[in-house]
This record gives sequence, structure tokens and C-alpha cells, in this order.
Amino acid sequence: MAEFIEVREVGLRDGIQNIKTVVPTDLKLAWIKAEVAAGVRDIEVCSFVPPKLLPQFADAEEVTRRALGIPSLTVAALMPNLKGAERGAALGVHRLDYVVSVSEGHNLNNVRRSTAESLADLQRIAEFLKTIPAEKRPRLLCGLATSFGCTIEGNVPHDRVVSFAEQVAAIGVDEIALADTVGFGNPNAIRTLFTRVRKAIGQNIVLAAHFHDTRGLGIANVAAAIDVGVRHFDASLCGLGGCPFAPGATGNIVTEDVVFLAEALGFNTGIDLEKLVAARKIVQEALPNEALYGQVAKAGLPKGFAYADARKAA
Amino acid sequence: MAEFIEVREVGLRDGIQNIKTVVPTDLKLAWIKAEVAAGVRDIEVCSFVPPKLLPQFADAEEVTRRALGIPSLTVAALMPNLKGAERGAALGVHRLDYVVSVSEGHNLNNVRRSTAESLADLQRIAEFLKTIPAEKRPRLLCGLATSFGCTIEGNVPHDRVVSFAEQVAAIGVDEIALADTVGFGNPNAIRTLFTRVRKAIGQNIVLAAHFHDTRGLGIANVAAAIDVGVRHFDASLCGLGGCPFAPGATGNIVTEDVVFLAEALGFNTGIDLEKLVAARKIVQEALPNEALYGQVAKAGLPKGFAYADARKAA
Repeated sequence: MAEFIEVREVGLRDGIQNIKTVVPTDLKLAWIKAEVAAGVRDIEVCSFVPPKLLPQFADAEEVTRRALGIPSLTVAALMPNLKGAERGAALGVHRLDYVVSVSEGHNLNNVRRSTAESLADLQRIAEFLKTIPAEKRPRLLCGLATSFGCTIEGNVPHDRVVSFAEQVAAIGVDEIALADTVGFGNPNAIRTLFTRVRKAIGQNIVLAAHFHDTRGLGIANVAAAIDVGVRHFDASLCGLGGCPFAPGATGNIVTEDVVFLAEALGFNTGIDLEKLVAARKIVQEALPNEALYGQVAKAGLPKGFAYADARKAA
Repeated sequence: MAEFIEVREVGLRDGIQNIKTVVPTDLKLAWIKAEVAAGVRDIEVCSFVPPKLLPQFADAEEVTRRALGIPSLTVAALMPNLKGAERGAALGVHRLDYVVSVSEGHNLNNVRRSTAESLADLQRIAEFLKTIPAEKRPRLLCGLATSFGCTIEGNVPHDRVVSFAEQVAAIGVDEIALADTVGFGNPNAIRTLFTRVRKAIGQNIVLAAHFHDTRGLGIANVAAAIDVGVRHFDASLCGLGGCPFAPGATGNIVTEDVVFLAEALGFNTGIDLEKLVAARKIVQEALPNEALYGQVAKAGLPKGFAYADARKAA
């Protein structure tokens, strides 16, 4: 069997959080089900922000409840604070995703708190989660935004990212995601920083990658991360998630293209690319005015393309 | 000083050869001059095909003559046969680029000859070039198309590519380019095949890469090729050069994004990205109906981005 790479869908959260057009709940569920049918096993389905702040996630409870009814799917959700964690835990989500920016300026801009305050909030969330019986307790993930640079501060020192990873690990998270929030990363930086962080946090914490393709290096960065042992990648169907401040720039790395890369490199994703590409129709219907990205969807699979597991078996 | 990577512009040949809109000669020259002003040192300016076949290159002689007047520019041109080589040599081009497909089916389809006939033609071209005094003799490059797979035959065996490289080296070419003509390549295949071919042809022949971004792995493939020592890359401004059989699929890898990757990885390209991005306006004017690609052009450079040489000096 080929080694497994988990491609996690974040289009329903990061992909649409900056889009004004509210995706109807039924279409969100159709989107989730189409990806699950294609083999996707981990989907961030919503954000537990206050509904007044982001109407896009006013249906967070319903989407979560219905997603939790889908067998074999890991249902994840973003939570901005303890209140969000309580909402998610009450529903029984499998993983709660928190974000703190390593760049002080970015964190202040993004959540109007210092990084110290954000880390203190994470501590409170971790303590709250410990009060839940282990078998019902959501896993806790912390994303370290702007780990590879920041539109406000520019360079973000690797030492600072490693220090944040250590603090977050000490708080007791189950998973850490290094995020190239604004597409400043490159394969060298990816290799260096993931290697350093893995060494700092040990082997028991999942270390995931959350990349954006803002400057065209997204897929090259995935290849570099795979090289140094990363096996969990966030991605967005159709590459949704563009930055409102960079018109025309792509958003999250494209789920379809990440799956194609991983399978071409000999890793099993468990995902059927034809079915995944077919799921794009739902996004197109839901968001007719958004630019959709993704090269495999346009060009199709190479003639004679065999999935990694099929090649291993042959 | 940072190590040098040469990014070669092929947009004026591969980029526009399938585009019906004929680019006016003056705009071609403006395009060439804008890239030279940005620091590009090697441009394939035309193809010496019969003008009746491709009206796009009816001005090949004039474009070549005027390009040769630009100081410090290496002027290259594609030639399909001995007749084209004679036209190019008469003008005094610096490099003549020939192409044979490794896939028999692709070669038959592309130039209506067997690969054996194409290799015999290359032999005749090489013999003709030897009759020219060394100081006036154009360098001879042979591109091996479909080295990473073929839309007609699917898989192309690495052994066959290595054998072609050996035959072409024995004929006496100065440079070989491994071409991922249809975007079937992936970082593993790139690393393996470039390493094998380099070993087979020795150190005295330039080994260049010619990649297309058809399935989104183009920049990842460049990073992989850089890893195994490749330092010469063909690319196309705005990513022109899409395949007429894959609507919406991108074409050649984007010059701007390749330069950004190389500089981010610590290599000096000698190219100013702002000036290169500004040159896109000429393409936009010349080809208003074509889709233009390229992420750096849309998102801009990262805040605080320093070119490789500047970082080395700091």
C-alpha cells in the first residue's frame, strides 16, 4: 500500500468566509456530500463566529449537525474563541480549529487582540475541552497564521514561529498547522521551518500545512512539505479563498491539484479525482460570480494516469 | 554572488504559435525590448517554418534581424528542418532550436515524420552547421518533446528518453532540453530523468528544462529540476502557449513566476520582476482576447522581498 496523505477540505470555511454571496445550507451539504463521495475524509464545515459578524456562517449549527450525520467523515470547525468552542463541543464536532497569527501586527489586525491574549484564549479553550469526557472531546488544532511572512510586517522570524509552536504544544493541542496565510512561502522556507517545528514539538502532535497559492508557489510548497514528512494538507475546492486585497490572486491551494500532485508522487489520498472535479459544479452553482481555479479540472488527467495504490498493486 | 539561473523567454515562439491573431512586428520588438530591459538575456524570437504554414511567423527574418541589433541578447529561433537552419544561420542567430518528440506517435502527429527521420534531419543540420566558421556558428539545441508523457501514447519510458539524449549528444548538439510538452511531469519524474540524462550525456552539454503548466505542477517541477542542478529554464510571459485541445488549460510555465521562485530560492536571475510584470501590458495589447496567466503579476511581490543577490550582499 502507498503511504497515505490526508487532503483536508477547507473551502466551506476559509474558501467562502470572505465571499458576500451566502451559500444556501442545502448547497453546503451537497458540496460536503459530493466531496465525501469522492473520498475526502476531513472537512472544515463552518466557523463558529457570531452570526451577525459573518452571515455566511449563520447556519453553522445546522451545517455541523447535518455533516455529523455523514458516516466516516471527520467534521472540523473553526472557532474564534471559547464561546465558539462551547458551541462546537455542544454539537460534538470532531475537531476544533483555532488560529493565532505569529505576526503581532497581523493578529491585531485580524482579531483585534495581541498574540499573548490569543494564546491565553487558547489556554482557556484547552482547559474547557479537558472538562469533556475523552471519548466525546473534540481534538484541538491550532493554526499558526503568517508563519512564512506577513503583508503587514513582512518577514516573520523562524525563531518566533518555533517559539509559538512550542507554546501551543505546551498548552496541549493535538495538532498544529503552519499557515502560509498570504503566499510568501517558498520551498526552502517550507523545508526549513517544518523540520524545525517538528523537532521542537516532538512526534505526538499532527503537523499540518495550510498553504495559499497567492504567488503561484502553492503546489511547489506542498511538494517541499511532502519531502520533509508533512502528510496533512488543507486545500480548497476550486481554489476558493482569495484575498480581498489582491484582486485576481488565487486563494487556498486547489484541492484537486493537491490530490493530483500527491497521487503523482506515489501517495494514496483515497480520493477519486474525477468525482472531485465533478463536485466543482456545486460550487459553480452556489457562487456563479466567483473565479474558480484548478488546472487538473481544466486539462483532465494524463492519459494512462494510475492512482498511487493501483501503481503499487501493479 | 548567488548562483545564476537563466530564464529563457519562449513566449514569442511557443507562446504564440497556436494563436491565430498575428502579433504585429513592431509589438514583437517592443515585447522583446521590454524583456531585455527587465534583464532577460535569452529569447526565442521566432520559428523558421514556411510562412504559408504559420502566418504568425511570416516576419521571422525581420524580427530576427532587429532582435540581433539588441546588445547582450542571445537570439534563438526554432527551425523545423535544414531549410530553417539555413535561414537562421544566414541571419546569424546565436542559437538554433530543433525539436524531436520521444513519443513516436507524437512526432508523427506533430511533424509527420518518424523519430528516425527527425533524428536523421538533425544529423544533416549538425553537418551543415559544421561548415560554418566556429565564430559565426549558431549553437545547436535539441528539445526532446514528450519526455514526461504523451497525450497520444501515455507513458514514455525513461530508458527511451535517455537513449534519445545519447543519440542527440552523439550528433553533436550543444544543448538538450527535456520538454514536458503536455504537462504530464511531476517532481519525482523530473528529478529521476534529469539526473539520468545528465549522467548519460556528461557535463559539457547544457541541459535545459522546457515545462508546461497544463496540470498545475509546472512550478513544482521547476523547483524539483533546480534541486537536481538544472539552471536553464524556458518560460513564457503571461503563461502563453496553451494547448488548443485543452480549453482553459495554461500553457508554458509563466516567466514571472519562474523568476520569483528562483529568486525566492536564492538564485540570481538578473531579472527585475517589476519591469517584467510591466512588459505584460504589451502582450495584453497585442493579444486582447487571450487569457493571461501568472500569480506574481496579480498579487505583487511579498512585502520586504529581496532579490537573491541583494540578500547575499546583506
